[in-house]
Amino acid sequence: MSNTDVVNMSKAKTVDLNADMGESFGPWTMGDDTALLDIVTSANIACGFHAGDADVMAATMALARDNGVGIGAHPGFPDLQGFGRRKMQMTPDSLGNMVRYQLGAARGMAAAHGAQVRHLKLHGALSNMACVDHAMARACYEAALEVDPDIIIMVLAATAMEDVVRDLGCNWCGEIFADRAYNDDGTLVDRSLPGAVIHDAELAGPRILQMVQEGAIITESGKRIATSIDTICLHGDTAEAVELAKSVRNSLQAGGVELAQFKGRSG
Amino acid sequence: MSNTDVVNMSKAKTVDLNADMGESFGPWTMGDDTALLDIVTSANIACGFHAGDADVMAATMALARDNGVGIGAHPGFPDLQGFGRRKMQMTPDSLGNMVRYQLGAARGMAAAHGAQVRHLKLHGALSNMACVDHAMARACYEAALEVDPDIIIMVLAATAMEDVVRDLGCNWCGEIFADRAYNDDGTLVDRSLPGAVIHDAELAGPRILQMVQEGAIITESGKRIATSIDTICLHGDTAEAVELAKSVRNSLQAGGVELAQFKGRSG
Amino acid sequence: MSNTDVVNMSKAKTVDLNADMGESFGPWTMGDDTALLDIVTSANIACGFHAGDADVMAATMALARDNGVGIGAHPGFPDLQGFGRRKMQMTPDSLGNMVRYQLGAARGMAAAHGAQVRHLKLHGALSNMACVDHAMARACYEAALEVDPDIIIMVLAATAMEDVVRDLGCNWCGEIFADRAYNDDGTLVDRSLPGAVIHDAELAGPRILQMVQEGAIITESGKRIATSIDTICLHGDTAEAVELAKSVRNSLQAGGVELAQFKGRSG
Amino acid sequence: MSNTDVVNMSKAKTVDLNADMGESFGPWTMGDDTALLDIVTSANIACGFHAGDADVMAATMALARDNGVGIGAHPGFPDLQGFGRRKMQMTPDSLGNMVRYQLGAARGMAAAHGAQVRHLKLHGALSNMACVDHAMARACYEAALEVDPDIIIMVLAATAMEDVVRDLGCNWCGEIFADRAYNDDGTLVDRSLPGAVIHDAELAGPRILQMVQEGAIITESGKRIATSIDTICLHGDTAEAVELAKSVRNSLQAGGVELAQFKGRSG
Repeated sequence: MSNTDVVNMSKAKTVDLNADMGESFGPWTMGDDTALLDIVTSANIACGFHAGDADVMAATMALARDNGVGIGAHPGFPDLQGFGRRKMQMTPDSLGNMVRYQLGAARGMAAAHGAQVRHLKLHGALSNMACVDHAMARACYEAALEVDPDIIIMVLAATAMEDVVRDLGCNWCGEIFADRAYNDDGTLVDRSLPGAVIHDAELAGPRILQMVQEGAIITESGKRIATSIDTICLHGDTAEAVELAKSVRNSLQAGGVELAQFKGRSG
Repeated sequence: MSNTDVVNMSKAKTVDLNADMGESFGPWTMGDDTALLDIVTSANIACGFHAGDADVMAATMALARDNGVGIGAHPGFPDLQGFGRRKMQMTPDSLGNMVRYQLGAARGMAAAHGAQVRHLKLHGALSNMACVDHAMARACYEAALEVDPDIIIMVLAATAMEDVVRDLGCNWCGEIFADRAYNDDGTLVDRSLPGAVIHDAELAGPRILQMVQEGAIITESGKRIATSIDTICLHGDTAEAVELAKSVRNSLQAGGVELAQFKGRSG
Repeated sequence: MSNTDVVNMSKAKTVDLNADMGESFGPWTMGDDTALLDIVTSANIACGFHAGDADVMAATMALARDNGVGIGAHPGFPDLQGFGRRKMQMTPDSLGNMVRYQLGAARGMAAAHGAQVRHLKLHGALSNMACVDHAMARACYEAALEVDPDIIIMVLAATAMEDVVRDLGCNWCGEIFADRAYNDDGTLVDRSLPGAVIHDAELAGPRILQMVQEGAIITESGKRIATSIDTICLHGDTAEAVELAKSVRNSLQAGGVELAQFKGRSG
Repeated sequence: MSNTDVVNMSKAKTVDLNADMGESFGPWTMGDDTALLDIVTSANIACGFHAGDADVMAATMALARDNGVGIGAHPGFPDLQGFGRRKMQMTPDSLGNMVRYQLGAARGMAAAHGAQVRHLKLHGALSNMACVDHAMARACYEAALEVDPDIIIMVLAATAMEDVVRDLGCNWCGEIFADRAYNDDGTLVDRSLPGAVIHDAELAGPRILQMVQEGAIITESGKRIATSIDTICLHGDTAEAVELAKSVRNSLQAGGVELAQFKGRSG
């Protein structure tokens, strides 16, 4: 760790903060997007399949643009009732077309607002499945790259997703969670276990600062898993979540970490 | 008319043939797209709201590309059961966002297939309403132009649609129907009246050839309405419709009219 | 008014209080159903087309049953994004089948919970259109009566709806709004005009008490329109609305009006 | 086998023929329901989630009623694009509510046509999953029985489905496929293997007659699995399928088997 500190002193760390947004639908609202836009540097915007309709997308992109927040497409399964959180069995071809369609819709909406879609992040069950299924991750990411070869793919660090983007040689960035505990193999502690989700805003900030400074996931047991931490995933669905997000932002800034949109790494 | 004939002799006419395609959905097929692709020069491809899912869009665009047929986005109301043929009351903002979303999706899908969306045509009730409602037409067309300022808007000639594109100063093309009779005010004869729909393939071809040569809609009473005939709308939902489409193509070619994708006129 | 008071003293008035409920969908919540169930005697439960999914319906019906609140089916247009508030053009046959389907689904869900669907009320744009369109009201109500000949149709008093149920000779009940001002012809004051919506809880209670006691709608100008006031429509979408609903309930009880589920009148 | 033959001679066998119907949606048609209604004695009618809208349900139920064909509800996953054939991950509660809703809708539609829903059969991936997952089968069947305790549950013979209905003690009937080959453990031969699907109408009829006469599934190897054959599943999605269905009907009638709606067995 002392080595890491030395490195940190010689060169300031930079990290991005991202959150899911635009998850309202029709008359139903979700999350506090306005509060989050003051905290994050990148927004993952729902594309109408699991949440977000064309009106919500338009309003969310306009807000993100006005706040200088990077815009990302956040495609999910075609399951509004289940919010894209229920696993669905789709062929690789259908997965690819689903991603092409949603990314295209997001790009069209962004263009109409003088903005652009910088990155793509998979949502919900689609993401959960692609974390452990190389073929699924590949079907989705190749489809996105066919639509836009320069798009930055946001992956969960140290999962099948990362393997795939490294193999594709595309632009990508690695993400860790601000509010989830990690197992020693890099997977998330199951939500049903105590301590799996971090609710304490006082705890979350310093913990993430340490991970960013060390360039490693710190597991529950204290083990370090060196990885690419380009962005921290925050949530804004509850007032508590917004407080935790603010705490993470404040801790990182206080620790001398610069907050800025990821540039995307390659290979 | 004699002047027109002189002009026709001095310069060969060119016209585009267009048809709606990609209107299957999931396990359900509609129309004979393969047959139509041998006849038309431009395809209006459904965008997933009234018909066409991401898989159907992908397959249809690949076919159109391979046949050298121009690709158009064909947005419609979000009403799968009603096939976009039932009027819906939407605000101008929602109409615009709906068009931005569908056009964006189509552009994403086209890009993924190394193709591009050249034109946009409104579908079903959305089109019927925009033909007589300048504000609706404007909301839809301005939205499309925000996504792609160069897109060619396909309008029903001599309707509110044409007024709007002329006023916007954008790229556009004017369309007439191969299989519908016209009233003296340029509107279509109501489907409930005898002769409103032309079923006779022998009749349809020469009739359209004459209109193209004269640069005018010829109404039931024989009146000429001078207009911009850039493309002829064909149908392929029945075997009879495909025969009629072939007849129109053959008559135009026999009459020395060149068949080619419209270039788009401006202003 | 003195005559009315005499009548009131000789026989206690009874009225029902109703509100729309079960309007959440998937992960999105709407309204404070728990608060409303302590106030109302009848609940209009969304049937999955404009709001409410099968899980929401199940939970809402179980709550209504446990609170002794009468259960009603509240069918709407198949337009989740627009919350059934956008007019759609449907044939009478399709309207009828849409009502049969939604009412059937509600009855199935109620049966599974040892409850029953007592009444039916149209939602949103479907209701707005049927208020002034006898054919639409008839198509919907006849369809409902084919599914259950004994169902009580809730109509907006003094509209086309009331004409139709009187003509059908079915069970029905007449409704007025707790929070809307009325014109002298019995229609609602347009929402865009000042005073159209009553926000003052102190005002709403006494006003409705007076209408119930007089058996008449009292318009903005003070005119009385004698009508069948069987139930008062309350809202619960905001904290303010819940306060107003409580005020109406308290005023009615303080005024000696009995609150109970409508029995349904005939003819 | 000689014993079985004796029994057969002393008492005529009766069997039901069933097929999926009402699988059109909006403007898209599927299958030849009219042809099938002359062949089958029971119809499994789609309930609007994977196929079939309210208009299609109404038309199909009216036809079934007029042909004296028994009406069944055929609920499936909420996945129109995938036709309910893609596995979805749903909780037991959500599965139950989904079945309650769809069965209720079917019962409402039937009641409006003076008919009744006699049976319930799960569709597509929902059926495939419930064949091997006792908890899923139980969640669906218990929900259906809460809506109608007398409904007859149609199960694939010799699967987890049969275990569950026997355990529930409800009315049920056992089904075998006319056009699928069986493995020695009673499961279907995988569609990817040669001979899995029987296309030869000349072959299918005698084969099914033999199974019905023996009261046993005859596997590819010739093994007999004694089971309850109450109904034979036919298909009508292609002209070939209709021919095979007719052949099965003719063979059974020629073999002295009576064709009639199943009565439902209990326990």
